[in-house]
Amino acid sequence: MTDNTDNPTPSPSRRSLLGWGGAGLALGAAAAGGAVAMARTDDDPAPDAGTAIAFHGAHQAGIATPVQDRLHFAAFDVTTDDRAEFVQLLKDWTQAARRMTAGQPVGEGGYGGLPEAPPDDTGEALDLKPSRLTLTIGFGPGLFGKFGLAEQRPAALVDLPKFAGDNLDKNRSGGDLCVQACADDPQVAVHAVRNLARIGFGKVVIRWSQLGFGKTSSTTPEAQTPRNLMGFKDGTRNIAATETGRLEKFVWVGEQDDPSWMTNGSYLVARRIRMHIETWDRTSLQEQEDIFGRDKGEGAPVGKAKERDEPFLKAMKPDAHVRLAHPDTNHGATILRRGYSFTDGTDGLGRLDAGLFFLAYQRDVREGFIPIQRNLATDALNEYIQHVGSALFAIPPGVRDKDDWWGRTLFSGEA
Amino acid sequence: MTDNTDNPTPSPSRRSLLGWGGAGLALGAAAAGGAVAMARTDDDPAPDAGTAIAFHGAHQAGIATPVQDRLHFAAFDVTTDDRAEFVQLLKDWTQAARRMTAGQPVGEGGYGGLPEAPPDDTGEALDLKPSRLTLTIGFGPGLFGKFGLAEQRPAALVDLPKFAGDNLDKNRSGGDLCVQACADDPQVAVHAVRNLARIGFGKVVIRWSQLGFGKTSSTTPEAQTPRNLMGFKDGTRNIAATETGRLEKFVWVGEQDDPSWMTNGSYLVARRIRMHIETWDRTSLQEQEDIFGRDKGEGAPVGKAKERDEPFLKAMKPDAHVRLAHPDTNHGATILRRGYSFTDGTDGLGRLDAGLFFLAYQRDVREGFIPIQRNLATDALNEYIQHVGSALFAIPPGVRDKDDWWGRTLFSGEA
Repeated sequence: MTDNTDNPTPSPSRRSLLGWGGAGLALGAAAAGGAVAMARTDDDPAPDAGTAIAFHGAHQAGIATPVQDRLHFAAFDVTTDDRAEFVQLLKDWTQAARRMTAGQPVGEGGYGGLPEAPPDDTGEALDLKPSRLTLTIGFGPGLFGKFGLAEQRPAALVDLPKFAGDNLDKNRSGGDLCVQACADDPQVAVHAVRNLARIGFGKVVIRWSQLGFGKTSSTTPEAQTPRNLMGFKDGTRNIAATETGRLEKFVWVGEQDDPSWMTNGSYLVARRIRMHIETWDRTSLQEQEDIFGRDKGEGAPVGKAKERDEPFLKAMKPDAHVRLAHPDTNHGATILRRGYSFTDGTDGLGRLDAGLFFLAYQRDVREGFIPIQRNLATDALNEYIQHVGSALFAIPPGVRDKDDWWGRTLFSGEA
Repeated sequence: MTDNTDNPTPSPSRRSLLGWGGAGLALGAAAAGGAVAMARTDDDPAPDAGTAIAFHGAHQAGIATPVQDRLHFAAFDVTTDDRAEFVQLLKDWTQAARRMTAGQPVGEGGYGGLPEAPPDDTGEALDLKPSRLTLTIGFGPGLFGKFGLAEQRPAALVDLPKFAGDNLDKNRSGGDLCVQACADDPQVAVHAVRNLARIGFGKVVIRWSQLGFGKTSSTTPEAQTPRNLMGFKDGTRNIAATETGRLEKFVWVGEQDDPSWMTNGSYLVARRIRMHIETWDRTSLQEQEDIFGRDKGEGAPVGKAKERDEPFLKAMKPDAHVRLAHPDTNHGATILRRGYSFTDGTDGLGRLDAGLFFLAYQRDVREGFIPIQRNLATDALNEYIQHVGSALFAIPPGVRDKDDWWGRTLFSGEA
């Protein structure tokens, strides 16, 4: 097995050498050395746009994969009620995703095809390289109300409770399906979502979508931690792509978990968090640092000198963000964050519509995002942010080889 | 003089050697060799994020400067009626722009300042390099209704006529001021606009803003021509950053033009052009190529083999886009295009809100954009696009040295 989370450079020869199922997760740690080299900050060389992330693997790519620079996330509603047609769409999407993540146009015939037919590929990524594109599919609660799937709905795919301060816009929430496209070139990510939407015409329709321009959490601790739009380093203690043990414990659905079709999958919480940056920008430096529980320049926890020093939570104010979000305050609850900053123009009141598109992966949302977010009800940061969009998706396992397809374990019943 | 349009790498020693005003535009062609090395495609090495574009020059940077990868464009309305306060804001903005384009935080004290005061810089670009950031200011028609400036309004700063097919949203149109921020890192561009807005609090307010994620026109013909979201190469025959003669003829306001405060400035037309990409994607390849007048893969004009072959306009359909936009069809009208693709989520009808944020610089809009856009009334492309935002700005000359400031020639009366 080639694990796409740990092997950014596809190696067909090694893939065929190992075959499917022979190496399992144990390979992850060994292969992880390759992933570390993909970390990017301004002090590192830029990643090679020619690098493709392997599409096949036990897990879907785009979760533990070292975080790319740009995001296009789309939630879809299903409009067909024909199960066979929907399954065919999943197969067609899988094949298109397989080609696009390898840097190929959707159609075998390149951008074109027959002159009298619409082109097989929309063309705007023709001259661009794979740019580490990953495409990750998820199934929302609504899907399990269709196609006789009610019995397959995972218990962990709950309807999220209303949290303190939520001000959710239904036009930016929910969805029967999601596709997370991440790449180092935004045109590559946008091209991928657009072509999947095109292929899905008449069967699915985009419900909402979100572009992200700056990653806010690194899964490569060797790299410089990126900053969110509040100017603070974000994701210092995130799960690293190389931490196989923490990934298994906190991110991947295990064989002992129900339902079995979700084994090697995960659960994704997406939250659009608007930041009131104009108000934040008029807040004193001391107050900003008190609110986060870290200093702004270095990112060190209160009373410590360096970003990665162990936080001493009791030194922080009781409502400090880092203190309330820390696993020690949440019975160990831990999530893998993979969010992006966004700026979507202006809100009509002269303020930038900017913030954090929060993406968190976890093995069970009831032991991950939900307890953490409940604990953040008293977060001092809440004065400056508001959750305005929300969605939860079951992320099925990876596509294991060229004959496999997204969602097979759900629709065919084979694990 | 160091011309920022032609010298992407600031060279203080050369700057001080030449001094201000000694070399003039004649230097442009000689220095232009440096700019060519900045061209970027996937086949070239990525530009060094450490490269800063010189802020000082006869012209503002960000016009003939080789096009960067990302855009954040903001239009502001002026809310103060105190001329002295507004002039001070222009000086404060100039100093902030001078620092940010050099990769420095806004304040001398770095991100911080006094703990009890708001930070001097919002901080999210602290660890990022200059990324070829340029900041370009423009003055809209509304500004000349304030501060006793009516007599200074250039005749070329017309109120744009209504064009066939216009469907303009006033919330995405107009503005007393604009700032065009271009950089290879979107976080750097967003940081710059946000900090200028912050500095302007109480004096100006953002009216609308637009992010662009993919450049659609190159000013470096040695590089691969980028593709727009219709999948076609765009800007093949654009004015190059190195074509000093065409820049002087078509882009820069000359000494013989009125008013004198605009000498070495330009005029900017900004149009938000929505593309109906879902409809386009269902159009046959042949029809797409007929509409543009070029083939999709190579970009060659109808009947020709290569992208840069001279177009034979009569071989194209009478309503082909390239034919109608060509200078030969428009009495020689020529503009410098510097647009970006955008995708701003979804429109509520399941369609991507995507298209082209068109930016065109010219010496006189009455001999540039207006006749060309009038001629495009019969453009076959109009079935697939709609102009939904529009603005026109007078772009003053560059800031010549550390004591100079944006708009000095307008407000002080000195050329």
